[in-house]
Amino acid sequence: MVNKVVISSKFWGRYRELVRKEMIPFQWNVLNDTAGITIEKERLNDDGIPSEKSHAIENFKIAAGRTKGTQYGWTFQDSDVYKWLEAVAYSLREKMDPELEKKALEVIDLIADAQEEDGYLDTYFSILGIQYKYKSLGGSHELYCMGHFIEAAVAYHEVTGNEKVLNVAKKAADNIDDNFGPEEGKIHGYDGHEEIEIGLLRLYHATGEAKYLNLAKYFLMERGKHPNFFKEQAAVYDGPNALSGIEKAPNTYFQNHVPVMEMDTAEGHAVRVVYLCTALADLAATTGDKEVYKACKRLWNNITEKRMFVTGGIGSTVNGESFTLDYDLPNDTMYCETCAAVGLAFFAKQMLRCEAKAEYAEVMERAIYNCALAGMALDGKHFFYVNPLEVNPAKSLKDPTKSHVKPVRPSWLGCACCPPNLARLLTSLDDYVYTVFGNTVSANTKFENTKFENAISENTVSVNTISGNTILLNLYMDSEAKFELESGDIEITQETDFPWDNKATVVVKNNTTETLRFGVRLPEWADNTLASVVGNQEILGTEEGYQYFEIPAGTESTIGLTFEMSIRRNYANTHVSEDIGKVAISYGPFVYCLEGVDNGTDLNCLSLPEDAKLSYSFEENLLNGVGIITAEGKRCVNKSGGLYSNTKPQTEPATLKFIPYYAWANRGENEMVVWVRE
Amino acid sequence: MVNKVVISSKFWGRYRELVRKEMIPFQWNVLNDTAGITIEKERLNDDGIPSEKSHAIENFKIAAGRTKGTQYGWTFQDSDVYKWLEAVAYSLREKMDPELEKKALEVIDLIADAQEEDGYLDTYFSILGIQYKYKSLGGSHELYCMGHFIEAAVAYHEVTGNEKVLNVAKKAADNIDDNFGPEEGKIHGYDGHEEIEIGLLRLYHATGEAKYLNLAKYFLMERGKHPNFFKEQAAVYDGPNALSGIEKAPNTYFQNHVPVMEMDTAEGHAVRVVYLCTALADLAATTGDKEVYKACKRLWNNITEKRMFVTGGIGSTVNGESFTLDYDLPNDTMYCETCAAVGLAFFAKQMLRCEAKAEYAEVMERAIYNCALAGMALDGKHFFYVNPLEVNPAKSLKDPTKSHVKPVRPSWLGCACCPPNLARLLTSLDDYVYTVFGNTVSANTKFENTKFENAISENTVSVNTISGNTILLNLYMDSEAKFELESGDIEITQETDFPWDNKATVVVKNNTTETLRFGVRLPEWADNTLASVVGNQEILGTEEGYQYFEIPAGTESTIGLTFEMSIRRNYANTHVSEDIGKVAISYGPFVYCLEGVDNGTDLNCLSLPEDAKLSYSFEENLLNGVGIITAEGKRCVNKSGGLYSNTKPQTEPATLKFIPYYAWANRGENEMVVWVRE
Repeated sequence: MVNKVVISSKFWGRYRELVRKEMIPFQWNVLNDTAGITIEKERLNDDGIPSEKSHAIENFKIAAGRTKGTQYGWTFQDSDVYKWLEAVAYSLREKMDPELEKKALEVIDLIADAQEEDGYLDTYFSILGIQYKYKSLGGSHELYCMGHFIEAAVAYHEVTGNEKVLNVAKKAADNIDDNFGPEEGKIHGYDGHEEIEIGLLRLYHATGEAKYLNLAKYFLMERGKHPNFFKEQAAVYDGPNALSGIEKAPNTYFQNHVPVMEMDTAEGHAVRVVYLCTALADLAATTGDKEVYKACKRLWNNITEKRMFVTGGIGSTVNGESFTLDYDLPNDTMYCETCAAVGLAFFAKQMLRCEAKAEYAEVMERAIYNCALAGMALDGKHFFYVNPLEVNPAKSLKDPTKSHVKPVRPSWLGCACCPPNLARLLTSLDDYVYTVFGNTVSANTKFENTKFENAISENTVSVNTISGNTILLNLYMDSEAKFELESGDIEITQETDFPWDNKATVVVKNNTTETLRFGVRLPEWADNTLASVVGNQEILGTEEGYQYFEIPAGTESTIGLTFEMSIRRNYANTHVSEDIGKVAISYGPFVYCLEGVDNGTDLNCLSLPEDAKLSYSFEENLLNGVGIITAEGKRCVNKSGGLYSNTKPQTEPATLKFIPYYAWANRGENEMVVWVRE
Repeated sequence: MVNKVVISSKFWGRYRELVRKEMIPFQWNVLNDTAGITIEKERLNDDGIPSEKSHAIENFKIAAGRTKGTQYGWTFQDSDVYKWLEAVAYSLREKMDPELEKKALEVIDLIADAQEEDGYLDTYFSILGIQYKYKSLGGSHELYCMGHFIEAAVAYHEVTGNEKVLNVAKKAADNIDDNFGPEEGKIHGYDGHEEIEIGLLRLYHATGEAKYLNLAKYFLMERGKHPNFFKEQAAVYDGPNALSGIEKAPNTYFQNHVPVMEMDTAEGHAVRVVYLCTALADLAATTGDKEVYKACKRLWNNITEKRMFVTGGIGSTVNGESFTLDYDLPNDTMYCETCAAVGLAFFAKQMLRCEAKAEYAEVMERAIYNCALAGMALDGKHFFYVNPLEVNPAKSLKDPTKSHVKPVRPSWLGCACCPPNLARLLTSLDDYVYTVFGNTVSANTKFENTKFENAISENTVSVNTISGNTILLNLYMDSEAKFELESGDIEITQETDFPWDNKATVVVKNNTTETLRFGVRLPEWADNTLASVVGNQEILGTEEGYQYFEIPAGTESTIGLTFEMSIRRNYANTHVSEDIGKVAISYGPFVYCLEGVDNGTDLNCLSLPEDAKLSYSFEENLLNGVGIITAEGKRCVNKSGGLYSNTKPQTEPATLKFIPYYAWANRGENEMVVWVRE
């Protein structure tokens, strides 16, 4: 096995074990309708789509001809199975489990059986009317589902070497290639929900077959060139209800308003946007296309500089689960879908392949440690789709504008997109720890960084004109890694209790025949990072947030790091009207919040004086062990009981107790705020 | 003519003239589809209901058999004609206009012709299927429309003595009485939108016929006893689309969740709630029923102490245009419909008949001078339905959560409820200036205050146990009034430039044979009200916000008033999370706001220091002449351009210029805020 990062971090280990021991088996039962739970009704509307059970495996059995029955569930029901399979692959990479592998193989056989002769793979249309395939792409999610399958197949193949699953994926991709493209007679279109582009690029990386790269590029570039594509398909569509009204959505919803190369702002459904961007950044990194890189950068900048919550959440409105406009970041009506934060981490990971800039790792870390992680309860069995920065349970209950904002995590929803997305992120977290530049032997394709380096040279500086072997350490996490490069292998060990300790010892063994350029991220959340180094390395400069070391071939270096950290007060840009006069507290990678159970009701009455001292301590027995922050703050209280008064409310002393945002809503229903008046 | 108040106030005179000269003729053209305008599409959704034209008069012509055609427009399209007729009645009271009277008489003939033989009056079902009448009351608006007709008819009859219109109203009311009530065989139900109750009570006051009082009481008390009434009707309804999905709304939407006597909180559609309360308070004042009064008081207290914006606006969410929960008063997503503020004034007016408490006049004044008046542009031709306390035009455009919040007033909407409601309020403003207790000769019924006085004695104090003639001066407004009581007439003259001056001279001539108890309101917004009195009056005490004088029979008193006013800083109860740390400025009856045209962009960046001096001045040439308030404030500005920073934004000096809220959005599209950080 090559390029393996074994995470031994206590913090992440617990989550990864939860996924392995709780989520994957639980989801397996859900997919098979044997979980013995009542799935909660769809979170937004009921559109007439039933969601009291999953039926996902059953749909495959019907499509495979193994049983009789009818399709049930969303048009994207298949993707639940694929995301499960992808998480299983990563889980097996972490820890082999013959029983789980057996289930996976059974599922692969089932998927293969459900695949049509021509390679088409989608149980919805196989069951309800194959003649309607590819005819309602605005809402059908056919390519979206196949994209997820391809991702799962590549992952499973990479981990286990299973050829069958890769062949099913190639056959599906070939079918797509037969049906879509610029050639006459093919459909000049794409899916309403981006994902196939990611899958095809992964398939290209796994197989080296250029047609998959070209097809991904075709989908990425064709999008938005003909903005009414979905509406025109919908106008003549008369098949089963694959559209569900989604074709009435504005073109921006689908990122179909202009071609991606012309987009200056992130518009529409947030998850779709970051999936689009993930594929686009992969394309940029893979081909070294400077213009593609610039398009990625425009969208990256717009999202992270103008449309991202301090938790790394994105999507400012429930309406279309969408972006809205620059600096519109309402804390209590936003969407901030877990999937979107996960997708933002995907995007960041690909951007790191384009440019060795710590900015990408910082956003990735922010999204993972805060918004994404908040998507899951500490028990691993309850999940948020929506991750608010301010909640009042009474308002969620009685104000329809906030009814999507849940104060406690439900167990499982009919539209089960987020939990499995989180599962695949957590199980594949090892892929985020490092970025490896240089020719690896694991893939059939070679990342041609030299080409890319020239392409974007005007945007990069000396160190970033990467040549030879370069590895970036992005995330601090107790782990052991081994990367097999053409010139030999590199082993990296991180010994750290991060995020609950501020020290890390990184041992790098360069067993290759080439000098290794090794960059360790200097975290933005540390006031200062002290490094002591033992070995023959040369200490290079710091650039774009990474401290570089040149480690000669055949030598080992030990880098001791200490992060000098202080509790940070974060202020939003004053264009963010909701946050003016307020402060968000952070420590290390964690954004903090006030929760009702610690701070009483009416949390907006609390304020943190500008000069209040903030104290950090670790509480072993709270929320599985968390660092808490306390401060002497104030609480405003009414003198009169009336609604309006000419007397200013008085303030009283109040002790504020902050907990990390990810850990909120694990102690029953209560209020929560991230932004506190200063 | 009896009980006439002639308003000569410059401030209100301009508005009333606009209604007479602009709104009424314009609306006439709209109703006849001769206005030459394109009516804007329905504000919330299009539900398949066409709204590009009014067709209201045409519907009547079709129902009357004068022409062929089909129904067009909302189920409540008829009410547009009735509200127009009601405003015409008040307008004729103010100023006779033979041409307008001729139009009104033609309309009355048309309505009479459209009325069914049995008295039923609703063009929607007369045209589309009379067999479906009264079968879809959740959404049909049949009784709602008839209620508006009855109000119009009573008003028109009172002003002109026209008997025909009153007879049509009685015939309609009789039909309702034939069809609804507790008796077997009658429908045990009521309308989805309260209004008929108000109409029936007015008809009772005009005719003295107890059956109308009883029917109103039946509707008020039956409501909510059988909460699924609308859903059950809807389940078997198969007629024309009168329901429009409204029957799917929760029972609270219709105030149908519990009987009104059991309601502790105002729930559901805000306009409906205040229409319900208006009728209920009329019933309390008319019958002296203590329990009914208590129910009114519970709802009054809940609305005004926990669910009312500082502008007098009500309705915290666009979703169902509804109340939500106590202290939930979001400034930028609320509804605050113009109709609801108008309805709150209706409710207050009736509460003043129950109790001589200035609190009711204060809320009435707040709603009229702020939220209601903001519903209309200074040109009298553009109207808000939604009256926000904070607007950012870019967010209204791009954030679907705020798409209902318009930054400029549209000209006319398909669902034309608010403009004519405002027209009837403004033309009948004379009815709000005073509350007359004592037996008047104008009505066929006698307000039996003596009965009521006992009934609510435990809630009232000495002065409020009204006996004999008592008149309250509620609103300061240059005017001449004459009230004919059984014991003679009373003339009251107010000479004042209020609201732009702080002095008023009130001359009261008691030409009756009884002592008059005269109460002048001591405005809550005045720090002190100085009174100098000339005459034989006895100066009684101050009670519940009114200063009382006893003016002997046959004498005249002249009361000179000076309101010592200061600019007020208003603070919301700390349970209102949106307003914590913020202040709203008021002066006299006006709430003030900051507008972009005066204060630049990003208005939330502005703050008003606690010790900043606020200066008032009158600007003759601004917005038809308004008092403005200026202060030296601050503006926060970013040091860094990034989205988040650990550096607190700096502040710079900035001059704040406040204008009265009612006058905003008359100078193009821009930002506006009422609540400013302190």
